Amino acid sequence: MRKRNRLSAESYIKGILEGDRVILSRAITVIESNHPLDLPLADEILEGILPHTGNSLRIGITGVPGVGKSTFIESFGKTITTQGKKLAVLTIDPSSQRSKGSILGDKTRMEELSHDPLAYIRPSASGSTLGGVNQKTRETMLLCEAAGHEVILVETVGVGQSETAVHGMVDFFLLLMLAGAGDELQGMKKGIMEMADLLVITKADGDNKQKCKLAASNYRNALHLFPPTPSGWEPKVQLCSSVEKDGLEAIWETMDSYFNKVKINGYFQHKREEQHGQWLEESINAHLRNDFFSNLNVKSLFENIEPEVVHGKTAVSFAARKLLQTYKESTN
Amino acid sequence: MRKRNRLSAESYIKGILEGDRVILSRAITVIESNHPLDLPLADEILEGILPHTGNSLRIGITGVPGVGKSTFIESFGKTITTQGKKLAVLTIDPSSQRSKGSILGDKTRMEELSHDPLAYIRPSASGSTLGGVNQKTRETMLLCEAAGHEVILVETVGVGQSETAVHGMVDFFLLLMLAGAGDELQGMKKGIMEMADLLVITKADGDNKQKCKLAASNYRNALHLFPPTPSGWEPKVQLCSSVEKDGLEAIWETMDSYFNKVKINGYFQHKREEQHGQWLEESINAHLRNDFFSNLNVKSLFENIEPEVVHGKTAVSFAARKLLQTYKESTN
Repeated sequence: MRKRNRLSAESYIKGILEGDRVILSRAITVIESNHPLDLPLADEILEGILPHTGNSLRIGITGVPGVGKSTFIESFGKTITTQGKKLAVLTIDPSSQRSKGSILGDKTRMEELSHDPLAYIRPSASGSTLGGVNQKTRETMLLCEAAGHEVILVETVGVGQSETAVHGMVDFFLLLMLAGAGDELQGMKKGIMEMADLLVITKADGDNKQKCKLAASNYRNALHLFPPTPSGWEPKVQLCSSVEKDGLEAIWETMDSYFNKVKINGYFQHKREEQHGQWLEESINAHLRNDFFSNLNVKSLFENIEPEVVHGKTAVSFAARKLLQTYKESTN
Repeated sequence: MRKRNRLSAESYIKGILEGDRVILSRAITVIESNHPLDLPLADEILEGILPHTGNSLRIGITGVPGVGKSTFIESFGKTITTQGKKLAVLTIDPSSQRSKGSILGDKTRMEELSHDPLAYIRPSASGSTLGGVNQKTRETMLLCEAAGHEVILVETVGVGQSETAVHGMVDFFLLLMLAGAGDELQGMKKGIMEMADLLVITKADGDNKQKCKLAASNYRNALHLFPPTPSGWEPKVQLCSSVEKDGLEAIWETMDSYFNKVKINGYFQHKREEQHGQWLEESINAHLRNDFFSNLNVKSLFENIEPEVVHGKTAVSFAARKLLQTYKESTN
């Protein structure tokens, strides 16, 4: 067994609450670990910091590759830290198996922000299951909150399943878009536009600005046709240029009015509570599925029976029952 | 034990394949039953009819209450049966616990269609879980296909979680809308508009017609801004009046061109296979969850710990692990 080199739960908790970034990073590594020895330690850390969580504004940011997410977060992040606010940026990309190399990658693509003492950047661990990624990201978010980060940006890539997951863990959902719908939207998941609290059209600079204004006006008209949001908030469309640093303050002001509104009308608290309940359900589901599919007998039967189901040769109900029977027999 | 009065699997299969509606109905009752004695019989029936399934056009229809779903299905259904096609209508309403009374209710609200020898109307059994409803509805769909129904309409109420489920079991998704977005959309689930292959504005008759034309044009513009569909199909917006029987033929023609397109470009088959895989996953998930939450020890711990999680007093990870531990201890 490799040397684990762990601190005591108390040391982690103390370090986090003092805002020690090294301890915070090491605690996140414990949380992300799936090693059985780390589980009780992770539980202790989480229980210890729990009373100090929940005080940040949690903001999800998504958009297809090429929309300029990193550049946006770099510029927008500076807007936040310039106000003296502590910021954490968590990035999720379930399509790539992130390593320490890509942590460096993230820091390189947000170079200015990564040297900002008020900003903390951390890629979310890639789990084997999406449920896993979600849970780790949520817990990382809690740790960052306990470390005093007042704004948390959760970045996701906008083309997979992670957007819905991120939407379920944040207070505010920001969608970055390019002017000129069409090829640029290829791969974006259906339903995302309707989830956005704010739609920002990026790269609104130089010759592109006029095109972006037109796009914004089209999107504004479209958003009026969507079902109303349960928050009572009317989704907005804004422009921004990360290069010219234009529109960033206005985006922050929009978020500010959103938070004012939902904190007063009670939706903020209501949504947080609803999310806690959902996290519990998702966490249970992820564990149950994980136990099931990591069973070797189930695995080998699944590999045989799944193609038959897909090609309509075996009924779903029969296959499911057979798999569950195999699972029960091999766990009893 | 009450008298079960079941036929042999062979008799059910033979009756279904011969298009015997009484036998079909009784077979659906077997499929819907959760009685342990019915499970192997249900499996046998499903395996027997499986080679005769998959030949229908599966169409999902949704819309908020008041949009005129029943009237639409009544008129649109007649359009289909007038062409000599056998139609089945399955209705899902997870919000109400349906009884035999409401079967009658469904038939009353689609009176003409319910007397049509080419139409078969059946409300889907309310299961305790949504997963349960889905599975039963999908299996009912298969039985109807084996009984020779060429078009299957799956109706859902448009305000809950069932739309996504229905979207996952059909080939074509039709959204009914009223002209004049606003209060009428209240309660419609976010993301549904983006899933629609066809958006039909109902009640386009009399004084309302002009308003509907304007709404259609607005929605058409909005749909252009959505991400492209994986099918290569461009979602359409059409008008219809169920009262004046106007626009129904055109809707059927739109569906026809959709099916022509996706059968040629391979998306039809691809989507069906993907759905089969998803059904298997969902079915497994539903069973695992069901086993978990029906455990009495789990149930009582959940009732205590869930409010603590919701109010941020207990960490999700800790609660989940505690619940899973309780589950394992009480099943071993």
